[in-house]
Formats: sequence, C-alpha cells, structure tokens
Amino acid sequence: MTDKLRIVPLGGLGEVGKNMMSIEYGRNIIVVDAGIMFPESDMLGIDYIIPDWGYLRDKKDLVRAIVITHGHEDHIGALSHFLEDFDVPVYATRLTQGLIEVKLKRRRPPEPPTLHTYASGDVINIGPFTIEPYHVCHSIPDGVGLGITTPAGLIVHSGDFKFDHTPVDGWSTDYAKLAEFSGRGVLALLSDSTNSGTPGNTPSEAMLDAAFHQVMREAPGRVIVATFASLISRIQQVVDVAAEHGRKIAIAGRSMADNTKMARKLGYLDIPEGVLVTLDEIKKLPARETVIMATGTQGEPTAVLSRLAVGRHRSLRIREGDTVVFSSHTIPGNEELIHRVVNRLFQRGADVYYDPLSPVHVSGHASQEEQKLLINILRPRCFIPIHGELRHLKQHGKIARQLGIPDENVAIVENGYPLTFDDGQLEIGERVPGGYVFVDGALVGEIGPAVMRERDELGQNGFMTAIVPYKRQTGRPAGQPRIITRGFIFAPESEALLSRAQDIVRSAASVKPGTAPGEVEEKVEQALAGFLRRETRRKPVVTSVVVEA
Amino acid sequence: MTDKLRIVPLGGLGEVGKNMMSIEYGRNIIVVDAGIMFPESDMLGIDYIIPDWGYLRDKKDLVRAIVITHGHEDHIGALSHFLEDFDVPVYATRLTQGLIEVKLKRRRPPEPPTLHTYASGDVINIGPFTIEPYHVCHSIPDGVGLGITTPAGLIVHSGDFKFDHTPVDGWSTDYAKLAEFSGRGVLALLSDSTNSGTPGNTPSEAMLDAAFHQVMREAPGRVIVATFASLISRIQQVVDVAAEHGRKIAIAGRSMADNTKMARKLGYLDIPEGVLVTLDEIKKLPARETVIMATGTQGEPTAVLSRLAVGRHRSLRIREGDTVVFSSHTIPGNEELIHRVVNRLFQRGADVYYDPLSPVHVSGHASQEEQKLLINILRPRCFIPIHGELRHLKQHGKIARQLGIPDENVAIVENGYPLTFDDGQLEIGERVPGGYVFVDGALVGEIGPAVMRERDELGQNGFMTAIVPYKRQTGRPAGQPRIITRGFIFAPESEALLSRAQDIVRSAASVKPGTAPGEVEEKVEQALAGFLRRETRRKPVVTSVVVEA
Repeated sequence: MTDKLRIVPLGGLGEVGKNMMSIEYGRNIIVVDAGIMFPESDMLGIDYIIPDWGYLRDKKDLVRAIVITHGHEDHIGALSHFLEDFDVPVYATRLTQGLIEVKLKRRRPPEPPTLHTYASGDVINIGPFTIEPYHVCHSIPDGVGLGITTPAGLIVHSGDFKFDHTPVDGWSTDYAKLAEFSGRGVLALLSDSTNSGTPGNTPSEAMLDAAFHQVMREAPGRVIVATFASLISRIQQVVDVAAEHGRKIAIAGRSMADNTKMARKLGYLDIPEGVLVTLDEIKKLPARETVIMATGTQGEPTAVLSRLAVGRHRSLRIREGDTVVFSSHTIPGNEELIHRVVNRLFQRGADVYYDPLSPVHVSGHASQEEQKLLINILRPRCFIPIHGELRHLKQHGKIARQLGIPDENVAIVENGYPLTFDDGQLEIGERVPGGYVFVDGALVGEIGPAVMRERDELGQNGFMTAIVPYKRQTGRPAGQPRIITRGFIFAPESEALLSRAQDIVRSAASVKPGTAPGEVEEKVEQALAGFLRRETRRKPVVTSVVVEA
Repeated sequence: MTDKLRIVPLGGLGEVGKNMMSIEYGRNIIVVDAGIMFPESDMLGIDYIIPDWGYLRDKKDLVRAIVITHGHEDHIGALSHFLEDFDVPVYATRLTQGLIEVKLKRRRPPEPPTLHTYASGDVINIGPFTIEPYHVCHSIPDGVGLGITTPAGLIVHSGDFKFDHTPVDGWSTDYAKLAEFSGRGVLALLSDSTNSGTPGNTPSEAMLDAAFHQVMREAPGRVIVATFASLISRIQQVVDVAAEHGRKIAIAGRSMADNTKMARKLGYLDIPEGVLVTLDEIKKLPARETVIMATGTQGEPTAVLSRLAVGRHRSLRIREGDTVVFSSHTIPGNEELIHRVVNRLFQRGADVYYDPLSPVHVSGHASQEEQKLLINILRPRCFIPIHGELRHLKQHGKIARQLGIPDENVAIVENGYPLTFDDGQLEIGERVPGGYVFVDGALVGEIGPAVMRERDELGQNGFMTAIVPYKRQTGRPAGQPRIITRGFIFAPESEALLSRAQDIVRSAASVKPGTAPGEVEEKVEQALAGFLRRETRRKPVVTSVVVEA
C-alpha cells in the first residue's frame, strides 16, 4: 500500500456511502458509520441488510476505529454485527452513544466494546488522522459532520445534514467550524445528496409547531402522533405543544419508550413532571386531554400503528373522534403499506393527517440551496456526492459543476469503488469485492442470490412436488404417485388438474427396466413442468423424489 | 326490487368505483366501465386483478349495457372477461372503441360483442335511463363524463377528468353541457377524487411543450421518451416537437405501435409524412436527429425501458449521450422499480429526466380547485366522491362540505356498498357479496386468499419437505429420509444443518409399531418445524411424505 489517501464507500445496495465508508491512509483505516439498509420489497423474507465488509477483513489489523455521525438506524444499525468482526473503539456523541447502548443491549457483541464519547468541537487523533466532529442539524439531535485532516489534506464529510436556523434544540449547524475548515483549504467535500432533487431550502423544524398546535386545539378526542422511535426532537416538540393544550402524553412501543427514557436521562429531552404518563393512566383521562406517541409510520406490520389499524393492539382501540398524525417521511418503497394503514385508520373512524397532505413533517436533509451553501462555504478542490442513489448523486454533481467545481474534480461512484487522491488528483479505482449481506432471523449471510431467486419463484408460482414409488427392476411405478402443492393452485378445487398431473407423472416414470432413480426424477420433473405450463401458463417450482420400492 | 335508484361501486380493492360501477333502476342495470386493478407488491405472481361481478351474475337478465368513459386499462382492461359472462352491447367513443378492439384482438370473448359508438353530445336511451356523454379532458383523448337521467333524477358521473384550457387536441371540457345539467337540477354528482390531496389547479398539457422543446434542443444524441401506450396526446406532443427540431420518430413496443396505428387511422393522431420511421431505419440516422418512443415507465420488467436499462433489448442499446425522458406519473407502489430503472439508465451513461425532477409530465386528474369548480357548476343535491382510495374520498368529502353540501348528502363508501336514493334521500345499504378476482396466467379466479397466503409464506421463508420410507409393522424408517429444500437456505453450504434435520426426521419417524403413515407425517412435520425455528428463528413451509416400504 503506497501512501495515498483512499476513500471507499461500502455496501452494495442503494445509497452510496450512507451505511459505511472506509477512509484509508498508509496502514491506517477509520470506518465511518455502520448502518443497515432496508430490504426492497422484492427481497422476500429479509429482515434487514448490512454492508459486506469482507474487503476490510484481511486488513483487520489496519482498522483503528469506527466513527459514527449520528444515531439513525442506517448509520448505527449494523454496529453490533460489525463489532463481532472488528474489536475497535467506537466514537460517537453522547446521545448517539445512548442510542447505541440501547441497541447493543438487544444484540450483544462477543466483547464489550470500547465506547468513546466525543463532542462537536473536540479534536481526536487516530493514527495519521485528526478528526474534528462539528455539529449539524438533522432529524435527530447531536448529529455531526466530520473534518478529517489527513497527510493528503483536509476532507469534510457532511454526515446527514440540513441548515436549520430554528431547530427544536436551539443548536444550529456549526458555521464557524465550517468557515475555519474553508480557511485551511478543503481537499474534498463528501456531501449528503438525499434531497438533491428538491429545489429551494428544506423548511425548519419550527415550521411544524403551527400544525401541531392546530391539531391539538381542534382534535375532538385523543391525538395519536406517530413518528420514528429515534426522532427525539419530534418527541420534544409534541410534548411542548401537548402540555400547552393541557394534554398528557403516553408512549406506545418499546423502542420509543426506551429511547425516551435514555434521552431524558442524558438531558436531551425536557419533559415537565406529570406530563408523561403510562398507557394505563392515559386511558382513564378524558380523551380530549390525551396524546399518545407511537411508532409504525412506515406501515411495519408489527408496529403500534399497524396493530391499531387492524384492531390488534394489546390495549388500545381506534375509535370515532381519534386523530392520527403521521409525522414522518415515507421511506421509498413503503408507499403502499403506509397508504393501506391510512385507509384502515379512516375506516375505523379516525381522522388522519399525513405528509404531504398536511405540514406535519419536514425533511432532515438539505435541499438544493443548502447543498450549494455548504459547497460555497467550504470551496473544496474536489467534490464527492454521497448518501443517495445514483440518480441523486448525478443531480448533486450537476449542482457542484454549476458552482464552478471542474468536471474532473467531481467523482460520482457507486458503493465499492475506491477514490484515491494522488497529489491532489482524484482517481477512481477498480471496484473492490463485496456488496451486501442479508440478515434473516438468525441467518446472517447464509441467504445469497440463489436462495433469493428461489424465494421469488416460489412466491410468484408456488411449488409442486411429486413423490413416486418406483421399481428399478421393471422400470415401472410401484404404486400411486403422491403430489404435494402449495402456493400454486387451491388443491381441493383443482382435483381434475391434479389427477391429470398424476397420470403424467405415472407415465413419465414408466421407463426402460433398470433405469436409475435419478434419471426418472429428471424425466418426471420435465414432464410435469411442461404439463403445468401448457395447462395454466404458469411455472411453479417442480421437484420430484423417486423412492425405490 | 322496488323502484329506487341504486348505485353500487364494484371491485373490492383500491379505488372506489374506478374499475366498475352498477347503476340500477327497477329491472334495469347499466354497468359503467370494466377495468383492471394493478396488483399490490405483496400480491405475488398475480398478473392483474378484475372486479368480482358475482353480485350481477344472478341479475344477468337485467343488465342492459356496459358504458365506457375512456380507454385506460383501469376502465377497459377487464372488458374481455366481462363479455365472457355478459352478452351486452358496449357503448364507447370512437377512440375508446379503437383501443377496445386492439385489446379484444388479444383476448377474444366467445361471442363477437356488439359495439355502439357514441359521441359527446349524443343522447342514448337504455331502458329507463337517458345517457348523455359529454367531453372531458383527461390524459387520453376522447374521454367522457356521463349525464344519466333516471326516473329518480339526473345523476352526473365525472369519469376521470381535469379542466384543461389548452389541451393538446384543442378540445376542452364541455362546460355548456355541464351548465345545462345544472339548469335541469342534479340529484347526485359522482366525482373523480384521485387528486383531492393536491391544492390548486392541475397544469395544462400545453405546459409540457417547453420542457420537450428544451430536451430536443439540448440533447446531444438520441432522445428516448417513455410514456403509457395509450397516452395518444403525449405521442402527438412529442411528434410535433420532434418534427420542429428535425428529429424523426420510431416507436418501440408493440402495444404503443398498435395504438398509434389505430389512432392515426381514426384521425386522433396527426403525424406528417416521413416523420414516423421504423426502428431499423432510425438506427441508420445521426443520433441527434432521432427520437424513440417507448413503454415501460412503471418499471415493468418486460417493457422496453427495463430491457434497455439492463441491456437486454433485442435491437437497442443505451449509450453515452442518450437522453431518456419518463413522461408519466408513478403508479403508487411502483416507486422502487422505477427508481431502479432510472439508476441503471444513469449507470449506462444516459441522462434521465423524470417527474418530479423535471416538468415532463402533468396529471390527468382535477386538483382541488377544479374539483370545487365542478361541484359549483353543477350544484348537486348529493355528492359521492369516487375514483380514489378511502383517504382521497374523505378529503374530497371535506371539500364538498366546505362548499355547502350538507353532511347527510355526502356519501363516502367503499366498493360493494350500495347507495339508494329514496325520495331524494341518500341511504347506504349493506355491503353486497364479492370483491376482486386474481388473474394469474390462464388461471382466472382459481387463486384465492389461501393460495396467496401460501405464496407469501413460501416467498418469505421457502420450504422444506422430508420424504421418509417407513415400515408400519416395525414403526421405524425403512431407509435414510430425503430432504428437499428451496428458498430457505443454500443447501450446499448448510450440510451440517441438513444432516441434523435428517436425524430429527428419523427420530420423529421412530414410533409405536403399527402407527399409520398419516400420523407419522404429522409427527415429522412438527418435529422438523420446531427444530428449524429453534436453530434459525425462521418458519419455512414444512411438509412430509411417508412412503410405506
């Protein structure tokens, strides 16, 4: 390894560099973030996806630390898996550490990890890197971007950010630090591209107050506000407005309750005595004096909101007069699920407020004008759009070029492509091996593309298996074949088809005396698949087992 | 049946009354539209969905006609199935009949149907109903709304509509007819709710000209415009702009080519000589002088655009310098698929324009101010929001109440709920039986909820089948059990798990001598499922077959 600065966004799917990034110089690597990806809707049965860090595995000795920008799932969700493979210290801000600890309680790494708390303004030296976290506004408190001074120059990693002049916690982005970086000269800016398709500025969190006041004032009964379990600032906002309208608050959903407790303890949530009550207590109060906060804004079937929508919550029922507020954005791919939940809540008599119909959510990511502002404050030599799909990065790249960054200094790459800086020249290397890893129950990485293809086929068309007793000596079936089928047709109503399938199987299993069972199985599968295709124009997964009698 | 006017929106899924509606008086029924629904992404393997008209089947003699509002799939796509069950005349405008004929060529009903062409301004008497189709603007030419005079009063069915003052075909909505209806007094308005969440007015189709001019002028090479195969006005628009910039046009995709040919023949498309060429001819022209129109804006894997995105089109390849325009809206649920195609086109070097990033599409449906305009022109006694999910209807209902329609005269119902008018009083009846029917290859209705649940389970976790040779006399396995598994784990890499599974099966099949095979199968399935759940925390579909030796 020559002494060059090298940056590799990792994780094969979706948003570039969002879930993990490797920053390397000489024999030193720091990793930024370890988050999960959400499965796309055709990735059947997958709980979540983690980056494939196989590329780092044979460089294990070189990894010095993992540095976390903020406490969202797509930045910390894979940390427990990562720490199983890499015994390195974790750097994060106080609230982020709190969220990490809540997570690590559920899935403990083999060794208790070394957690270092850092804060905006700190200066941390790790090998040849000097890391300066600086505060950014985002849809979670205590998020940071990173200034990373390397022997090749200063790079700035924006984290997930927006410029909010009136954030709920009163703590705006650290402009002074950005200006200081700019004064020192920035080799490269890696910047959040999520909203590069949105013109203008992202509205401030403060904008939501008006909408919440209106809802709390006008709602004739209970108000149920759903949001992400980690959106601490939204919880604060709802608490403040609810208290003003004389409403008490209860929290439904374990992850949100855990996070609230932790954030209160660390001083990131300010809830006056008596405002927060239990679910049991809130049920005894007049409906007009209550607010329930819940999870499930993405239509996740097991979350509180979906249970309410189908009438399957342990202790709560939606009733006429309830008002439900979805204070969240839609993670792409979840539209159908969410709309289904919304429709069902209406069906049960609730009134429902949701984005974009009502101003009950703002994005946590910079829009085009804020993206331009960051570029113009820092005036970096090179620009690398990150945190977005290719389409977002392309758009962000256009923006950077509009601001005068020369074409050859803008690098748009997908995950796995290393960027090297050689004497200030930006080069794109060959893709490193690796991609992503499916997590499915206790199976981590056991599920690969072959299994996913089979799930897809099974989900589309089901299967049919023929079991044939067979006498090799005569080359004839030794009894009636059995046929099992699931997910293809409704068997009790398809007797005629199944009995013809049996005939096909019998005749395919009538062969030259002495034929080997394996050969008969192949013949049976071919004949059966062909028959089903002709009859139904479908292709179920067909297998057969020949049992020698 | 007493002599009351009765309206029943049919089809159990999604948008109310969009795909089919039954309008009844005495012993007379007319059906409005016969469209398909698109499967939601968790409806695995389903090609499309048609309304369940079982409720009409025992009223077969009463059905007098089917009346079509316009030629979109969700209004005509189920017609060939409907005509297999109901031998009734079809009323539609000329272009809509053309589109129907193209469809019926692919799936012929048993009897050649009786097609009646009607036009905006016609007056048609069917039993006690007098039907007056009137022209509306929508994202397809020759669409109509319906004035239907019944013995109970005049009802107006808006069809799918917007108010466009500068439509591509120069033919605006028939305001005069609406005013005339209003003068006569309208008992009930049934109105399109699709965009009831969108404030303001939907922009005119003419608005797109500027964007298309810009693309055709600036694109350094080929321009590929993708849109719906039936969006004849968009094809016209692209032809006009392309011709001005000296570009020739070819059409890729059979359905769009068929529709273009038909619309040209009927005079709904005006393409100057020499502008339309074949795909082979266009490949010989300089890239800057060409436009290709294609289908596949929803990310459908077999459509032209998806084939281009993955490099699998028969004769075309995407190359650096190509510009691709998605001139279409996103059907909810298709976001992921579409973004995948967009990202892949970028990957292959194309520049991509898509909604909402670029103004290359406008909706075909009225926004809030247009919805208000229709209500205020007609001043109906009763208001029934249709063509939308429950959440859209609720919003549209709010709008109607804001305009002074009394609460008791606004009926928000889901599909299957009959509305009766008794002396001008609007009543909601008991839900009629029925819902929707899955179409899966040649299987129409054979796939029910049981099979869909199995597909879901198989897709999530795959299956494992154990085949056990068994001697009843001894109550022992008569040989090594065989295990087949698909979509669960990758078998070659999971030998240890599979061999332990075999042990479990063997021991579960070791029972009291004389135990019946059925009982053994049950024992094996329970033991195997329990083992897999404990080991992997997953629940594949487990079956077993015991073969007596």
